[in-house]
Amino acid sequence: MKKFTSVNDVLDINYLIDRAVYYKSNPFADSVLGQNKRMGLLFLNPSLRTRISTQIAARNLGIEVIVLNIDKEGWNLELNEGAIMNGTKVEHIKDAAPLLGAYFDIIGMRTFPGLSNKEEDYNELLLSQLMRHSGIPIVSLESSTLHPLQSLADLVTIWENHNKITRPKIVLTWAPHIKAIPHCVANSFAQWINKWDNADFVITHPAGYELSEQFTEGANIMHSQKEALAAADFVYVKNWSSYTDYGKVCCEDSSWMLTEQHLADAPDAKVMHCLPVRRNIELSDEILDGKRSLVTQQGANRVWAAQAVLAEILKMS
Amino acid sequence: MKKFTSVNDVLDINYLIDRAVYYKSNPFADSVLGQNKRMGLLFLNPSLRTRISTQIAARNLGIEVIVLNIDKEGWNLELNEGAIMNGTKVEHIKDAAPLLGAYFDIIGMRTFPGLSNKEEDYNELLLSQLMRHSGIPIVSLESSTLHPLQSLADLVTIWENHNKITRPKIVLTWAPHIKAIPHCVANSFAQWINKWDNADFVITHPAGYELSEQFTEGANIMHSQKEALAAADFVYVKNWSSYTDYGKVCCEDSSWMLTEQHLADAPDAKVMHCLPVRRNIELSDEILDGKRSLVTQQGANRVWAAQAVLAEILKMS
Amino acid sequence: MKKFTSVNDVLDINYLIDRAVYYKSNPFADSVLGQNKRMGLLFLNPSLRTRISTQIAARNLGIEVIVLNIDKEGWNLELNEGAIMNGTKVEHIKDAAPLLGAYFDIIGMRTFPGLSNKEEDYNELLLSQLMRHSGIPIVSLESSTLHPLQSLADLVTIWENHNKITRPKIVLTWAPHIKAIPHCVANSFAQWINKWDNADFVITHPAGYELSEQFTEGANIMHSQKEALAAADFVYVKNWSSYTDYGKVCCEDSSWMLTEQHLADAPDAKVMHCLPVRRNIELSDEILDGKRSLVTQQGANRVWAAQAVLAEILKMS
Repeated sequence: MKKFTSVNDVLDINYLIDRAVYYKSNPFADSVLGQNKRMGLLFLNPSLRTRISTQIAARNLGIEVIVLNIDKEGWNLELNEGAIMNGTKVEHIKDAAPLLGAYFDIIGMRTFPGLSNKEEDYNELLLSQLMRHSGIPIVSLESSTLHPLQSLADLVTIWENHNKITRPKIVLTWAPHIKAIPHCVANSFAQWINKWDNADFVITHPAGYELSEQFTEGANIMHSQKEALAAADFVYVKNWSSYTDYGKVCCEDSSWMLTEQHLADAPDAKVMHCLPVRRNIELSDEILDGKRSLVTQQGANRVWAAQAVLAEILKMS
Repeated sequence: MKKFTSVNDVLDINYLIDRAVYYKSNPFADSVLGQNKRMGLLFLNPSLRTRISTQIAARNLGIEVIVLNIDKEGWNLELNEGAIMNGTKVEHIKDAAPLLGAYFDIIGMRTFPGLSNKEEDYNELLLSQLMRHSGIPIVSLESSTLHPLQSLADLVTIWENHNKITRPKIVLTWAPHIKAIPHCVANSFAQWINKWDNADFVITHPAGYELSEQFTEGANIMHSQKEALAAADFVYVKNWSSYTDYGKVCCEDSSWMLTEQHLADAPDAKVMHCLPVRRNIELSDEILDGKRSLVTQQGANRVWAAQAVLAEILKMS
Repeated sequence: MKKFTSVNDVLDINYLIDRAVYYKSNPFADSVLGQNKRMGLLFLNPSLRTRISTQIAARNLGIEVIVLNIDKEGWNLELNEGAIMNGTKVEHIKDAAPLLGAYFDIIGMRTFPGLSNKEEDYNELLLSQLMRHSGIPIVSLESSTLHPLQSLADLVTIWENHNKITRPKIVLTWAPHIKAIPHCVANSFAQWINKWDNADFVITHPAGYELSEQFTEGANIMHSQKEALAAADFVYVKNWSSYTDYGKVCCEDSSWMLTEQHLADAPDAKVMHCLPVRRNIELSDEILDGKRSLVTQQGANRVWAAQAVLAEILKMS
């Protein structure tokens, strides 16, 4: 693996799940693989779970980690070719990226969508420019449109809990929130489950919350949450803002909050959420505090997902 | 030791002092004890001495450290059971803590009192919830009401300087400041000296600055600073705001600033302060720059106190 | 070497260049030299290149690194003897520095000029007080007036590219910018090239941008950029604000921006800049994207310069 920015960088999803599960039992098995290697973690917006889990994964492999909270350093990068830099942008990606490529062996970067300009967000300019100009492997720690490390951890969690069900029914359900949230987690989950192709995959949301078809294609999309949830094995709860009316909150229907009552027809359903979760807005206390919840396991699996990815990248470099 | 949040978690104070003194001479004696262990340092308010000294202590024991400046990340935690999270709190402690427990082997946390609601500060809800929901050992890096790592460093310093005095006279004296300061250092010092029970312990402050009796009980409390300081062996200088008129500054009497003149009747007295100190407000230059001052030694001992505590916790886990 | 705050701390520049070049080929040759040593990196203003390169250099030598972003912690230090500390300064350098000296084996500090008071900036009070009161080796990571680690990296880069030219012609040229910039990089480069004394050294700038003679003495200073650039082997492009009309921007003549046209009489000239660079304000795209540019190599050499310096300091301590 030369980079990890979406499921399309992965040759064999099941192999990667397998490696993550292996590291979960053997965290320090490859503790010399990353000896004398360095990873830079660039955060353009704050992160806790992602930063911690990636840092742990890297250290387990012996990789040195340097964290750069770029948002707080005011390191405003220019991305446009030919720009006359007389404004607030202090450095061009063409000058910053090659140096990062000289300092590090791997770069992890978290960026985020502005949610006001769909094209700008969806062309992932910063990520692609960083890849082009740094010349070293890039790992997305969440981009404007995708969150592949989260999705791999999600799949590891599903794999650990699927109890030999040949084709589990997986439902991604929209949930209410109090503000406009990016599409990354939902897009990425849809993209991974579709490519994995070992599940009956249903996406349910109110009308107006259709995700981009480039990620959802292959899933069964329903507007009836009740119908979607019936006989579900895994229910992934997530809010996202509108894609068509870009970045807007077009419905706040609180009846979409997942409660035990919603799972009356899905007695064995396990419930997932990437955290942080707004309790009693997205998901009820009874579910989060009950036996269905996989959220802690899912968050803990972020470490093993990252470790599997970093190890594959090290092996190629 | 399964946690370290107050002197009540310590079975044998003298043993812990002894371990700290041992590490001071042998910093790397147990450098493999913490191998493949990870400690998360969570700061809800800024810290320099505490962060550096704890980080050094952990590294001396081979522990990996990840620092989280939570205040700057806007990670505003909900603590109330059953909360409908439609406000500014982004995550419930019930969801955050178990994951921290999965990521780390030990958590150190610094929190702080708001100084506006006595009950809220003194019930230490965040600390107790973190302990309850994380399931791993917690080390207080200063809480709303106590600062046990500071107190252990204070006792190590007293031990190093007590010159075989059987029962040294230790005086904790209030000093002026320019703003309202928490009670943590004073509460904790009182609690430790009282439990240690190897000293004549006097607390002196202007009327209105009585500390909580749960910590001071056992000490001789005086309003005459002059009388209190007579024949003192150790004088601990510290400002704190009012406990009864909670969080208020009820007197700014600058005559309480400790100077050489105040120590006329205590020729051998050594002077302590936890730093940072407001020179010529709390303590005079002549004392801080003179032979009585133990402040640098005391600050340096923070490392060995933390190392002794972390080592004991590692041995139990 | 007991400290590294200017070229005057260096006995033999060529030896230091040689060490840097050696580490570039053998990054981990001395990975045990700094075992059980700790370096504190104190930043009073943000830094990316300097922080990363110094951190990498230290880790390559086995040194533990703790980063302190002091500006963000609000750690406002009092420097004046005898101050009554009733204002915004929370700690005196006399109390902070000895403790840093106890915690660390080496301190690296980045400070910066206010650019409003020439005397205050040029007496480097914070740096000299830190040296005096910490008692341990100090490495400047850029001070109010100098940036010696940058200059050493610059010289390493010149050395790597001088192609056996006996005395290369090196030109430091002022360039336009959009705001007032410190003199540190220019002062320091001038000081190093002058002391190195293996080049024909020319400084060119518009009238009013004369640098302090204490650093430029020995260089040929010209107001005609065209004349200065003729037959140059190395052109160092840098903006700085006025020294005489202290901290002011006294000319924004955009014709000083370096372009290919400016180098018509210097066909072999290599172009240097310390980054970050304002494209098409200081330097044209064609130069930065062309074969003349050494800027990435120069930035990458920051690691090896820092590693050479830290190794020499470790050998003396």
